[in-house]
Amino acid sequence: MRHPFPMDLVLDAERAPGYGVREHLVEQLRAVILAGQARATEPLPSTRSLAAAVGVSRGTVVAAYEELAGEGYVTIVPGSGTFVAADLPAASSSPSPSTARGAAETFTRAQEPPRRTINLSPGSPAAPLHRNHEWKVAWREAARRELPDLPPPPAGEAEFRAAIADHLSAARGVQCAANDIVVTAGARDGLGLLVHALQGDRSTGIRIATESPGHHASRAVISRLGAIPVPIPVRDGGMDVDRLADASGPFAAALVTPSHQYPLGGRLPVPSRLALLKWAKCTGAVVVEDDYDSEFRHGAPSLPAIASLNDEGRVVLVGTLSKTVSPWLRCGYLLVRDDELRARVLETREVLGHPVSGIVQIALSEFLRTGGLRRHLVRVAREYAHRRGLVIEATADLAPRIRLDAIEGGLHATLSWENGGPDESVVEALAREGVEVAPLSACYYGPTEPERRGIVFGYGAPTDLELRTALDAIRDALAPQRN
Amino acid sequence: MRHPFPMDLVLDAERAPGYGVREHLVEQLRAVILAGQARATEPLPSTRSLAAAVGVSRGTVVAAYEELAGEGYVTIVPGSGTFVAADLPAASSSPSPSTARGAAETFTRAQEPPRRTINLSPGSPAAPLHRNHEWKVAWREAARRELPDLPPPPAGEAEFRAAIADHLSAARGVQCAANDIVVTAGARDGLGLLVHALQGDRSTGIRIATESPGHHASRAVISRLGAIPVPIPVRDGGMDVDRLADASGPFAAALVTPSHQYPLGGRLPVPSRLALLKWAKCTGAVVVEDDYDSEFRHGAPSLPAIASLNDEGRVVLVGTLSKTVSPWLRCGYLLVRDDELRARVLETREVLGHPVSGIVQIALSEFLRTGGLRRHLVRVAREYAHRRGLVIEATADLAPRIRLDAIEGGLHATLSWENGGPDESVVEALAREGVEVAPLSACYYGPTEPERRGIVFGYGAPTDLELRTALDAIRDALAPQRN
Repeated sequence: MRHPFPMDLVLDAERAPGYGVREHLVEQLRAVILAGQARATEPLPSTRSLAAAVGVSRGTVVAAYEELAGEGYVTIVPGSGTFVAADLPAASSSPSPSTARGAAETFTRAQEPPRRTINLSPGSPAAPLHRNHEWKVAWREAARRELPDLPPPPAGEAEFRAAIADHLSAARGVQCAANDIVVTAGARDGLGLLVHALQGDRSTGIRIATESPGHHASRAVISRLGAIPVPIPVRDGGMDVDRLADASGPFAAALVTPSHQYPLGGRLPVPSRLALLKWAKCTGAVVVEDDYDSEFRHGAPSLPAIASLNDEGRVVLVGTLSKTVSPWLRCGYLLVRDDELRARVLETREVLGHPVSGIVQIALSEFLRTGGLRRHLVRVAREYAHRRGLVIEATADLAPRIRLDAIEGGLHATLSWENGGPDESVVEALAREGVEVAPLSACYYGPTEPERRGIVFGYGAPTDLELRTALDAIRDALAPQRN
Repeated sequence: MRHPFPMDLVLDAERAPGYGVREHLVEQLRAVILAGQARATEPLPSTRSLAAAVGVSRGTVVAAYEELAGEGYVTIVPGSGTFVAADLPAASSSPSPSTARGAAETFTRAQEPPRRTINLSPGSPAAPLHRNHEWKVAWREAARRELPDLPPPPAGEAEFRAAIADHLSAARGVQCAANDIVVTAGARDGLGLLVHALQGDRSTGIRIATESPGHHASRAVISRLGAIPVPIPVRDGGMDVDRLADASGPFAAALVTPSHQYPLGGRLPVPSRLALLKWAKCTGAVVVEDDYDSEFRHGAPSLPAIASLNDEGRVVLVGTLSKTVSPWLRCGYLLVRDDELRARVLETREVLGHPVSGIVQIALSEFLRTGGLRRHLVRVAREYAHRRGLVIEATADLAPRIRLDAIEGGLHATLSWENGGPDESVVEALAREGVEVAPLSACYYGPTEPERRGIVFGYGAPTDLELRTALDAIRDALAPQRN
């Protein structure tokens, strides 16, 4: 190697609260790599030698390397060592021709594709669970269970429902019993089940108020099941309840995202929450609270779920493990306190069959019960906070023409503008650069034109490095809107 | 102990083909227990001493004890030994007071409830997979996978679809490609998905021909999704295709169980199969082949699935792993060869969300790919053949008034009569005895009265001992219908 790896990292300077030795080591190593002091595809020092040089345990170095691998800065080749990633952003150095040949070959075998699509689809989480011991133990326990000779009960396995009720109480301030929980195959399945139950035998489609802008996928589920989504504008962080009350009824339900409005962000203020409950009481409609990503708050503290208010059973909370674990898992839940509505939901489930494997339910019970999920969330929340910082930093000078929203919680952000060009062309330009984001205008529907145009993108799934690359591309693509 | 365990078991007398040392040992031990030579809750000899006495390997004795445990004759208490089960049928001896106290206490802790419901619900399989090494390995592999940040594709994971296509080709004679497979959360989910896709945006319910008698659950799915099930009588082992052709259309589909008619048994003859395909071609309807339990044939060989004929893509096969693995698993598949119909199915899936966890799909891919499922099916098929023998033996003298049907394949049988009392009262009487069966009359629907009444019961899930007990209860309950 031409230049030696800087072994004299200093770790003990003014630690931020909540920062440990590992976090500091990760930060220093990140800086070394980004500064080009260790070049793409070059080997890092052995864990033993770096540990000795820096004065930390070898386990700390191993953990730091693993975290950097998760972020995309390095690649761990079992049996060979740890190497700086091949696809570093332009800011860092180009591949060094002086790299030891053996190591370079090993590396090439391990990580080949030079360019891949960076998925910034809103709502995809970071899920490095395949390296999580508690995760693997939970599945091992589940696979050991004797397989019952009947399907899981329509509401789900009792122990899983109990674990979900505990999680909701701790994470969302919602006091509930296991009996109030219905296990689902994710938010769409939960919403679909609810629409089925509300629709019942009625031959004309029920009407469901939904936010505009809002989740396109939720509206699609409602329409596909023969019900009618009715657009209600968003104002001050959530559905405009005055406009809802003025809309011509009847409504079977209103679907809202009060904790973190999708896609614009914001929290529905308490007076609006109370007005919404009052509306529900007067009209007999159900409030469907889509609590899709409220486990993560970065700035303002979280408001408890509407379902935690004295709602007289009028609120149904739609929860998902897609954001806290992975959308690949296909698991979520409904909180339905009203006995009669829950009976209708369970009757529907009984007839159409329960979709969630008993093994999945038991494994997740274990992962929740033992605190594995809680610890996982603490870890990923730290990563999200870091990436969120990157987003804020990279987009600061786009203001005031282009506004950054939704960054106070969850896993996505929007960059939007009031006039100017359409957003689909920006999305297409980014797709050509290998960066997948969603157009804001597709979240609007109804008779009026979208108020704002822009892009919606997630920062949960990409590695730090991918996010940096993607943010560069986003800045380039937004240049025409900037002035 | 008052009486010594008969260690002088003879194993080498005239072995039936396909019978090995273990099978003979199991048979002899079963006989010893049923004859009362080893009494309820008493310990069996240690595996070491019995192996030495009989002249077989210790592993053979361990395997035999495990098989007997699966059948309910014995209970294995890890660290203590193997004990004769507490709830033996009356034919065998009552609990012995002379049992060594320590062993009895250990035993009581391990197996307490003296009486439990015996589940003879049709279609429940034996699933001793929690003792299957390959099963546990498959889940371990799946839990190690990196969790993708997107849901599984609408059709399911590619490697799982490939494994299912191979299984269908080997087990059902159906040549198909991975691309023809759509992963489902079981047969009901598959049928529901298909009904959704066929129904599309039509505001009036599509009509689907179904067998009467037939699966109540299938009809319920069809109705619940706004489509209309139309009853077509069963004749000669399946749907009466002449009656179908005469029925006033239009039909979007005909749902049939041609390999093992549910609930009466029988196979749809080849001329009827061809007539059904011709009907489908003329009317543009889809043939939905519910292939719910055709992996198991006991007497007559299996006919390949209708989907294996030259069907011009008109047949959709609905498959499930509920019978081959467990209904607790919630997994199945559709085989849809027609590109346009498959596109509609996938569009529905895309909108409503895929319900089957990626982890489940990967674990099952592994279990199929490595041959674990095939070996499991060979093992349980042997158990089913044995239990089927018990059913035939126990019901032989009920003829001719009461007829035993459906026993040539699958996991269930019917006992039915033409005149005489209603069947619901028999089902209720059995429920009071702790034996769960289903009434045959509930399988019929439509304007005409049921031709036959009777009971439908499964023999897959219960242990041998439970089945013996249940068959005694069934004989008692049917006494009034017998003459």
